Amino acid sequence: MDPALKKKALRLLTYGLYVVTARHGDSCTAGTITWLSQCSFEPPLVMVGIQRKSSLHKAVAGSHAFAVNVPGKSQKKLATHFFKTAAHSGNKLGGYEFEPGATGAPVLTDVTAWFECRVVDEIRRGDHTIFVGEVVAAGVRRDEEPLILRDTGFSYGG
Amino acid sequence: MDPALKKKALRLLTYGLYVVTARHGDSCTAGTITWLSQCSFEPPLVMVGIQRKSSLHKAVAGSHAFAVNVPGKSQKKLATHFFKTAAHSGNKLGGYEFEPGATGAPVLTDVTAWFECRVVDEIRRGDHTIFVGEVVAAGVRRDEEPLILRDTGFSYGG
Repeated sequence: MDPALKKKALRLLTYGLYVVTARHGDSCTAGTITWLSQCSFEPPLVMVGIQRKSSLHKAVAGSHAFAVNVPGKSQKKLATHFFKTAAHSGNKLGGYEFEPGATGAPVLTDVTAWFECRVVDEIRRGDHTIFVGEVVAAGVRRDEEPLILRDTGFSYGG
Repeated sequence: MDPALKKKALRLLTYGLYVVTARHGDSCTAGTITWLSQCSFEPPLVMVGIQRKSSLHKAVAGSHAFAVNVPGKSQKKLATHFFKTAAHSGNKLGGYEFEPGATGAPVLTDVTAWFECRVVDEIRRGDHTIFVGEVVAAGVRRDEEPLILRDTGFSYGG
């Protein structure tokens, strides 16, 4: 397999941009990820690939829960903010307000929509872990098209 | 959880449109799917959610291999053609030419790019199965932006 062709083909996959949040003990953490998809209607399940060595991975693996925050098209700044580790202080993560969700995971108050998941399966293979989460809570805050990875000029994959 | 909010939030997830193909014995099959994402760089892995009751599921589960064909923006007709079961005859699937890939899975000759996977893990939960595939072959046929689910007016998820 030609690694350059493999990279080019895999970069044609289409992704959104999501801020995944989790609480581990007293500490809340967040990370912007792209490798996420629904994987069942009934029950509603999603699958997400999270970097094995990240603090987000530690929090999701430890708490067996996470929230997915969906930034709108106008929120590139918020979405890219969480590419790096965000400081947690009080009810803020990286300066953005959150409220505790049903699972305990922090839910950002300024995104278009969100949902919370309880982890029901995981596969540790390669450099990321696949967490399968059952959607147990969800909300929509306003009408706005979601941000798409390709629109930001960033890429993740290949 | 309000099912309408859950549906609305989950439909904000962003997807591409991919024709997944597989060979089971002498029979080739294809299905257009959206629930697919990379899930590791090293080794290169993808995760895909495939309807448990589909003929595509039977072929992937039976052969432990599949190909992902990426239609370009101009190929809505090809992509939506495989929403329904496609007849296999000789070197054609639903009238579209294919060639046998390295894994034996049929690779469509008229798509923008493609890659082939060997199944290394699966999770059967809910109404779809998550197959995790290691990318073992890949090719790019031309330069064209990929087709995006939202652009087609269809949706799958919620």
